[in-house]
Amino acid sequence: MKTSELFTRTARQAPAEEVSKNAQLLIRAGYVYKMMAGVYAYTPLGLRVLENIKQIVREEMNAIGGQELIMSSLQKKETWDATGRWDDEVVDIWFKSKLKDGTEVGFAWSHEEAIIEMLKTYLTSYKDLPINVYQFQTKMRNELRAKSGIMRGREFIMKDMYSCSINAEQHEAFYQSSIDAYMRVFNRVGLGDVTYVTFASGGAFTQYSHEFQTICEAGEDKIYQIPSSGQAFNEEVAPSRAPAFADMPTEQEDMNVVEAEGLTGVGAIAERLAIPRERTTKTMLYLADDEMVAAVVRGDYAVNVDKLRAVLDAQKLQLASEDNIRDITGAEPGYAGLVNMPEGVRVIVDDACEPLVNFETGANKTGQHAANINWDRDVTKPDTFHDIKMAKKGDIHPETGEVYTIHKTAEVGNIFNFGTQKSKDTNFSYTDEQGELQYVHLGSYGIGVTRLMGVLAENFSDEKGLRWSDEVAPFRVYLVRIGNDEETISAADTLYAKLQSWGIEVLYDDSEKRPGEKFADADLIGIPHRIVVSPKTIAEEKYEYKKRTEDEAEILDIESLKSRLTQ
Amino acid sequence: MKTSELFTRTARQAPAEEVSKNAQLLIRAGYVYKMMAGVYAYTPLGLRVLENIKQIVREEMNAIGGQELIMSSLQKKETWDATGRWDDEVVDIWFKSKLKDGTEVGFAWSHEEAIIEMLKTYLTSYKDLPINVYQFQTKMRNELRAKSGIMRGREFIMKDMYSCSINAEQHEAFYQSSIDAYMRVFNRVGLGDVTYVTFASGGAFTQYSHEFQTICEAGEDKIYQIPSSGQAFNEEVAPSRAPAFADMPTEQEDMNVVEAEGLTGVGAIAERLAIPRERTTKTMLYLADDEMVAAVVRGDYAVNVDKLRAVLDAQKLQLASEDNIRDITGAEPGYAGLVNMPEGVRVIVDDACEPLVNFETGANKTGQHAANINWDRDVTKPDTFHDIKMAKKGDIHPETGEVYTIHKTAEVGNIFNFGTQKSKDTNFSYTDEQGELQYVHLGSYGIGVTRLMGVLAENFSDEKGLRWSDEVAPFRVYLVRIGNDEETISAADTLYAKLQSWGIEVLYDDSEKRPGEKFADADLIGIPHRIVVSPKTIAEEKYEYKKRTEDEAEILDIESLKSRLTQ
Repeated sequence: MKTSELFTRTARQAPAEEVSKNAQLLIRAGYVYKMMAGVYAYTPLGLRVLENIKQIVREEMNAIGGQELIMSSLQKKETWDATGRWDDEVVDIWFKSKLKDGTEVGFAWSHEEAIIEMLKTYLTSYKDLPINVYQFQTKMRNELRAKSGIMRGREFIMKDMYSCSINAEQHEAFYQSSIDAYMRVFNRVGLGDVTYVTFASGGAFTQYSHEFQTICEAGEDKIYQIPSSGQAFNEEVAPSRAPAFADMPTEQEDMNVVEAEGLTGVGAIAERLAIPRERTTKTMLYLADDEMVAAVVRGDYAVNVDKLRAVLDAQKLQLASEDNIRDITGAEPGYAGLVNMPEGVRVIVDDACEPLVNFETGANKTGQHAANINWDRDVTKPDTFHDIKMAKKGDIHPETGEVYTIHKTAEVGNIFNFGTQKSKDTNFSYTDEQGELQYVHLGSYGIGVTRLMGVLAENFSDEKGLRWSDEVAPFRVYLVRIGNDEETISAADTLYAKLQSWGIEVLYDDSEKRPGEKFADADLIGIPHRIVVSPKTIAEEKYEYKKRTEDEAEILDIESLKSRLTQ
Repeated sequence: MKTSELFTRTARQAPAEEVSKNAQLLIRAGYVYKMMAGVYAYTPLGLRVLENIKQIVREEMNAIGGQELIMSSLQKKETWDATGRWDDEVVDIWFKSKLKDGTEVGFAWSHEEAIIEMLKTYLTSYKDLPINVYQFQTKMRNELRAKSGIMRGREFIMKDMYSCSINAEQHEAFYQSSIDAYMRVFNRVGLGDVTYVTFASGGAFTQYSHEFQTICEAGEDKIYQIPSSGQAFNEEVAPSRAPAFADMPTEQEDMNVVEAEGLTGVGAIAERLAIPRERTTKTMLYLADDEMVAAVVRGDYAVNVDKLRAVLDAQKLQLASEDNIRDITGAEPGYAGLVNMPEGVRVIVDDACEPLVNFETGANKTGQHAANINWDRDVTKPDTFHDIKMAKKGDIHPETGEVYTIHKTAEVGNIFNFGTQKSKDTNFSYTDEQGELQYVHLGSYGIGVTRLMGVLAENFSDEKGLRWSDEVAPFRVYLVRIGNDEETISAADTLYAKLQSWGIEVLYDDSEKRPGEKFADADLIGIPHRIVVSPKTIAEEKYEYKKRTEDEAEILDIESLKSRLTQ
């Protein structure tokens, strides 16, 4: 294609309100156009990148037996009622509207319930299983904010796949094959070496789900990686041991209760008591099913609710209200602690608290904090300490003893084992060989296609512009003509035709811009290979060739050029 | 693909509530799944057909220089305010919702305004033009009813293209090339010989737009075709001359006024007066801009408002309210007519009224109709009669004198010349060679992709099922294995591999169903070529081959089979 035929134009500046790097670059280079916050149109260049990414994903999903289909965006209430997910309190990102007769309709933010509804009509016997189906579908999500460019949109394209298996074993085999297929996708788009399969929050059925997290400065997530292996955890599930605290006293001092009306918060308390935060504690009260629970962590940590829920094996877990706290402790919020803990409250203490000497805790009286507390002497030492803290920098992976490497990442994929939970909710069953009804084992597998394009723009770019890989680039070669004389035009046109005859897709800058502008455009648009035709190269009967990722150009004859591009 | 790998199943019955033939067949054969009225999911078979159609359209749009892109479904109010089309009174099929901050958003039922908004940022100079861009996009339309299967959905896929030209001449050249490209599309999908380019309602800028109308029993439109040529008109714009009325009296009789309180409507009046409807007249009162107009047609015709508007050259034209009628005529509605017509009312009479003798008309008094009216004697004969009637069966094309052939049709495409109207509304201009601002000439070009699939299902099917053409079929060959013994399985598997090695896509029925069921499935699914492998064919070292469109099978050796399928 010639740039003169392309309607988009490069721009020096991105719109002022656009804060994300991916959108700034993609807008400036003419790949996307911003319709509104979190909503982008994809111009011819952008659509080519999207389609290249989709094709890679499609090939890998087909390779593991995926059947492609396409669902609808419009959703009816009944489809989502069975799982309770029509409710705006449960799912707060629905876009909804109404038919003329007043019937509510929603715009799909996910297709899990809709796919199940459809599959139920076809899959009735064990002979029909296993199957897996997938689609590339536009999802609509009513996000509160949308400032990450195409990495988190209100409208975006997702590849979502769903597997149906007769039992856990069949499910597990497919689940593993999907992990491999996903990694092949991320390898092919060039992100294999910075993408980790992580453990992420599970659900009712499974301890962990898996995510695919790519190291990316603009990412919204953090992962905790064990340095000696590729194993990594999302922050919210990373098992953690606190590093040893160097300044722990060895002598126990006398307990004393500090009267300090209005003094709350570990920062202020540590300052007032002139002790490090590592010798304060934080006590949070929860209602776990019908039991009142006090969760205690060291003052420099936060409670990890998912870990706490797992320890308690609780279905429902919610923070106690201020009134609850007053009822239980008899004190204002901010003074809960291990001293004077009311009977009937179950106490769970994080393992970072075990080595504490002369530590602070709330006294369950308004305005009172207890200092120089020691286990057994002042408060009962728990039989077992648990890991209920949110991991943080410097923490150790308990099993290996290694200090985690922490990365800022973007979630590019996730896979989820529903077990038979969702099948039970939606009554999705099959008849087994004995004629008995069994629930289908379900899995769900997502790749954010537009997000992936955003991550590629973030990671494969420099101060000059984008740097697409051969696999996803909208064109493989950027042909620059320097000179508008007849001979140069003819030579460039000839090379343009020749490259295409080799099966290479070319973007040909046939404009009359100055050479500096043309080179700047080439760098901004980021096609992987650049070839220059000019009176100088014509005189030498050679071509100037440069990779976008390299600084130096080479002078090549036509044969060397061909072997570079077709090897 | 093997049918055992396909999750869909054929069904003998369509859902009871599904009334359209296309959806009944497509659901039974496993091409679509109905999510709700007017909203369908496309299963792997259905998606293959859709993608084949899209690819044909894509190739033809690219051939005329189209650049593919993809816009967003979410739309903001500002984009549509300039043309007034955000207003639900102007466009009554919007689905709308709200962002978290209360901002209204819409879901695109069209992309005209959105595309213009985007193109305005890129196209500023005459050097940037002409360009044309297109997309395959899901449109959402809040239709009151949705009973035509995939031919009219609340969610459907459309190819929409937009052209920008510097002047009328450049626009016209592209407009003509788009007509040719559209006809190539309809030829390639097999509808060329039943698809007409018709004249359809224009707009403010142009007398006619063009539609592509395919003869189809399930269609919602009617076209009027001139038998000796391919020229055709949509019903609403068909110029018409009434055929001569054989029983017209030759002697004028005395006028008389019939008192008949409550007698209104030409049917009742004709019966009471014992005259044919062809000797009654119908007078409709309109407010045209600020003028009161009486439109008079023969009693067996209806007024065509578009024709009337063109005669009046009026911007606004609306039917007078009942109160208006009482004010103007002094009579209750139902008695307006040529007798006692109040002054100041402009009278437009249809040309079918010119030859009337002894005709009836309203007397503008409640309960009074005038009979045996004759031009000049009783009422002023207009200087000019106009064609303001809605054409009907038997009518004549005035220029050629030929009686129209009328077809029931489905609109599969439309093209529209906006001239500079929409550019003015949206302030879309470019700088010409003299540095002057000029408005862009715009055109819009649509093909309903899912509707086209529905029309194909309607037209290419019989009592046994679907009959896809080679170009759009999900697979080219349906391979039926009769027999589950080792030798037959091996022979069928071998042929399956061989067909694929020839580059032919095959759906292989490897099930253990009875032969009758397999043949019924083959007919229902409608793959164009069927091949049977059975112990009998193996014994003969031949294959049974049958086209879906033919009744008789042939016995072919492998070479003949190959030449049939690859010729």
